[in-house]
Amino acid sequence: MHLQQLETPCALLDLPRVQRNIQRMQQHMNRLGVKFRPHAKTSKCIEVVLAQLAAGAQGITVSTMKEAEVFFSAGIKDILYAVCISAAKLPRALALRRQGCDLKILVDNERSALQVCEFGRAHQERFEVWIEVDTDGHRAGIDPAGEELLTVATMLQEGGSKVGGVLTHAGSSYELHSPEKLAALAEQERAGCVLAGRRLNQAGIRCDNVSVGSTPTAFAAAHLEGVSEVRAGVYVFFDLVMHNVGVCEMDDIALSVLTTVIGHQREKGWVMVDAGWMAMSRDRGTANQQRDFGYGQPCTLDGMPIAGFTMIGVNQEHGIIAPDISMQSIDITQKFPFGTQLRILPNHACATGAQHAVLYACDAEGDATPWERFQGW
Amino acid sequence: MHLQQLETPCALLDLPRVQRNIQRMQQHMNRLGVKFRPHAKTSKCIEVVLAQLAAGAQGITVSTMKEAEVFFSAGIKDILYAVCISAAKLPRALALRRQGCDLKILVDNERSALQVCEFGRAHQERFEVWIEVDTDGHRAGIDPAGEELLTVATMLQEGGSKVGGVLTHAGSSYELHSPEKLAALAEQERAGCVLAGRRLNQAGIRCDNVSVGSTPTAFAAAHLEGVSEVRAGVYVFFDLVMHNVGVCEMDDIALSVLTTVIGHQREKGWVMVDAGWMAMSRDRGTANQQRDFGYGQPCTLDGMPIAGFTMIGVNQEHGIIAPDISMQSIDITQKFPFGTQLRILPNHACATGAQHAVLYACDAEGDATPWERFQGW
Repeated sequence: MHLQQLETPCALLDLPRVQRNIQRMQQHMNRLGVKFRPHAKTSKCIEVVLAQLAAGAQGITVSTMKEAEVFFSAGIKDILYAVCISAAKLPRALALRRQGCDLKILVDNERSALQVCEFGRAHQERFEVWIEVDTDGHRAGIDPAGEELLTVATMLQEGGSKVGGVLTHAGSSYELHSPEKLAALAEQERAGCVLAGRRLNQAGIRCDNVSVGSTPTAFAAAHLEGVSEVRAGVYVFFDLVMHNVGVCEMDDIALSVLTTVIGHQREKGWVMVDAGWMAMSRDRGTANQQRDFGYGQPCTLDGMPIAGFTMIGVNQEHGIIAPDISMQSIDITQKFPFGTQLRILPNHACATGAQHAVLYACDAEGDATPWERFQGW
Repeated sequence: MHLQQLETPCALLDLPRVQRNIQRMQQHMNRLGVKFRPHAKTSKCIEVVLAQLAAGAQGITVSTMKEAEVFFSAGIKDILYAVCISAAKLPRALALRRQGCDLKILVDNERSALQVCEFGRAHQERFEVWIEVDTDGHRAGIDPAGEELLTVATMLQEGGSKVGGVLTHAGSSYELHSPEKLAALAEQERAGCVLAGRRLNQAGIRCDNVSVGSTPTAFAAAHLEGVSEVRAGVYVFFDLVMHNVGVCEMDDIALSVLTTVIGHQREKGWVMVDAGWMAMSRDRGTANQQRDFGYGQPCTLDGMPIAGFTMIGVNQEHGIIAPDISMQSIDITQKFPFGTQLRILPNHACATGAQHAVLYACDAEGDATPWERFQGW
């Protein structure tokens, strides 16, 4: 089906761009001499993840047990669950390992390490556990230079678990936009995580994996000495936030929302469309960046950004596209007649994707194939 | 299953509160002597909508064709699709009417009216069409005092459609919080819509329905003379935005997200939980209100708000709960031990609900029954 026959709103993937983004990251990782483990949370789509693996990725990262289960059922065995695990999720982790999944789980505190070991002993399962360290104060993780790291690792090893690696995520990279600062953060992320791995090895706790990553730091890293693998998610689609960070051009953004003009408020210059926050998400990730794109950048049906117009507001099933000062003399009913189809580039590909159960994968001719995107936990 | 056995994150409904909210609105509408047509977009859940109808509601409002189809298949016939319809959605509207659904559709411009009439004539279907008028400059709709209203209505009537009514939605009520301003806006909404209906009747175009509503104006209306029905959606669950607007107490909020503590950042006083934006949504509706609740208000497992703590940040599957100044001496690892279950009240019930395919309906004892909540268009 051609994309212009699709019912709106719906999510589109520009397949040539997806392939280009995949190749670009994989080639960069190959040059740096590290393994690449894409984060599947961005797409939650089997076709996309298989394309990443076909290009050379080794294993995947997931953020939910459901992702682990779905991708394992699609034949992927090397899976890293990258959120500190709580006791209630261990039965599903165990079930996956019993079915042959090489699932690695994550902890960042003594209590979670203890629970993993207790549950493992009760079920005769030696879990492979990675330890999260905090290299930028962004979110979770243990101080890579502190005592707790060794306490947790020792607790895991003595409790019957396998310490598989150390992991960090410099998520504060999303707040930057200069190449120098990004390179500095990438080095901080690398150095902190390498330090954590080295301290474990020096303490006699073998640590084979040193895993770092975020899309911006992955591209900004000058070298990755001591790192075994990089993780990144959003690079596969990119988005306006990443464009503001400076790691992609507008025409690298592969995810958009197809919408239809359903009305006008002529005096205000407003174009009403049938993509509201249900289709775009409520993500306002560009609000505090160098350029605020509102709820998204309108493009023509063939994907060309329409200069001077922004999606300034959304309700559940209504979006409002409005001109900036330079365009306020234009007759919007002429420029955007009732029924016109537009594509909207999103602030945040993970959040906008999550609003859709289907991604319409469009080839260079605009022929669309529905790809399932799963939801839930 | 008791709610404390549920896997997190998940969405909970407090059933006694849902019932109380339904009764409160219905009794208010009965006192005002108008019909009540709840907006099903808030719940997208058959059990919830059937409870609204059982309490006395007459017909429902929907925002997508999928809502119309799902609720029609559940036996509901009187359905108003309250978004200006585009040509591509008319085949589904036609199919519903052919199956016996008393579906009313909406237009707010000449072009959409023309398309409905053309499509109707081509398929020998006399659509019932309502006309949206704009009474507060919030979003869509025609000026109720302007010429275009009569042009569109005449076009519909002469084109073979039935003009069923006029409709307005004073969505700007969400931005208010004083009873006086809300009452004034409710009167403005009523007067504008009644005017539109009267002008049609005076022009010889019979207009039987005058439909107004938003949750705040529904409660604020002192009288509804000339109005035939009121629409409202979010009142059924309420949320922190509505609490700030002043139309509900915190303990009226019936939707929450159940989450588990998965870590701490002791120096910062951060409690990490497994509900991120995927579970909460990215909605920041309280950001510009009198009290900013961040991404939500943490409560104990039995639903008591925890004073002095707010969900200050979210990533995809991580939430960060932090204390305000008054609580910064508290040891958060003692107050919120690893594994603690919490409930988070959301900013916006429609947006948070939309992140979940299941709502766990909890009775007064905390026994939870899964209710399906559908997604998509």
